[in-house]
Amino acid sequence: MTKSTSRVARKRALALSKVYGLLEPGPVVLLTTARKGRANVMPMSWHTMLEFEPPLVGCVVSDRNFSFAALKATRECVINIPTVEIAASVVKCGNTSGKRTDKFTAFGLTAVAASQVQAPLVAECFANLECRVVDTRMVNKYSLFVLEVVKAWIDPAVGVPRTIHHRGRGQFMVAGKTIRLPSRMK
Amino acid sequence: MTKSTSRVARKRALALSKVYGLLEPGPVVLLTTARKGRANVMPMSWHTMLEFEPPLVGCVVSDRNFSFAALKATRECVINIPTVEIAASVVKCGNTSGKRTDKFTAFGLTAVAASQVQAPLVAECFANLECRVVDTRMVNKYSLFVLEVVKAWIDPAVGVPRTIHHRGRGQFMVAGKTIRLPSRMK
Repeated sequence: MTKSTSRVARKRALALSKVYGLLEPGPVVLLTTARKGRANVMPMSWHTMLEFEPPLVGCVVSDRNFSFAALKATRECVINIPTVEIAASVVKCGNTSGKRTDKFTAFGLTAVAASQVQAPLVAECFANLECRVVDTRMVNKYSLFVLEVVKAWIDPAVGVPRTIHHRGRGQFMVAGKTIRLPSRMK
Repeated sequence: MTKSTSRVARKRALALSKVYGLLEPGPVVLLTTARKGRANVMPMSWHTMLEFEPPLVGCVVSDRNFSFAALKATRECVINIPTVEIAASVVKCGNTSGKRTDKFTAFGLTAVAASQVQAPLVAECFANLECRVVDTRMVNKYSLFVLEVVKAWIDPAVGVPRTIHHRGRGQFMVAGKTIRLPSRMK
């Protein structure tokens, strides 16, 4: 069993009410889509939570991205959250278009079947959020899709994930230590 | 000269084309508003870049927040970006409503006049983005305001800012080390 396969095997469903804690810190995510039997993957940093439960996520996918047409046509995707161990692969996904390249094969990422959508999970990511597009009214003006997370998976062995956070121009901040403060925020 | 005053004095205007690098990593920000001579401040984690230049930012401000009415009425605000040194004050701002409390006085934050909007800058924050509301069509359904950053300020002495990133339930990730990868992403 390869490392990525074992990561899939030990994944557990995550309560949808806890999804916000994964996306609020602003990690770079890998968005996967699938159309006509062809999967693709792109990094994305322009996303925000819009509602706790069911979890709604707003995300920007430009029509200059190859994923745009698949997302619009299939109305399905997966938000996969990588950690620093695969940062080099994440960046390569952003440097290459899926138009001519199978980025999974090219950059060593493993596509695994999702449970609710046709788009695949990326096995090497510690969390995977299966999503359906529920609102496209802001797509024409802002390329903003509203997604509903319909199923969430997490690797219980991850502990505090060392997510990566885009600062622009090749610079990424790696998640540092966690502090606790007496917050009444959810 | 107090520490916060000297921080204001040394701030420089930041090119609007560089604003995305501040917000993409997903920091908790402090949103300031002002209405009828009364300023308020609230922490916010639900925000995303929508466009590079002019910088457009989508942010969620619920109508349960005291800031909502001021933001909707004045169509102006400032996004202030704090670092871990003032994390305790940031969290206290989230635990308290501005309805009855002057949070600046209560939590040791210094309001300084902005250049383009009535809402104040928070002196203790290393960056301040003066914003105008440019689209309210998603407010009814998602409490999502589209802001245009019209002026940006940064403390050139900050180096790599130790921003804080909300993981929920009193847990905050503090920005860790920066890595560089050969990215073609902007």
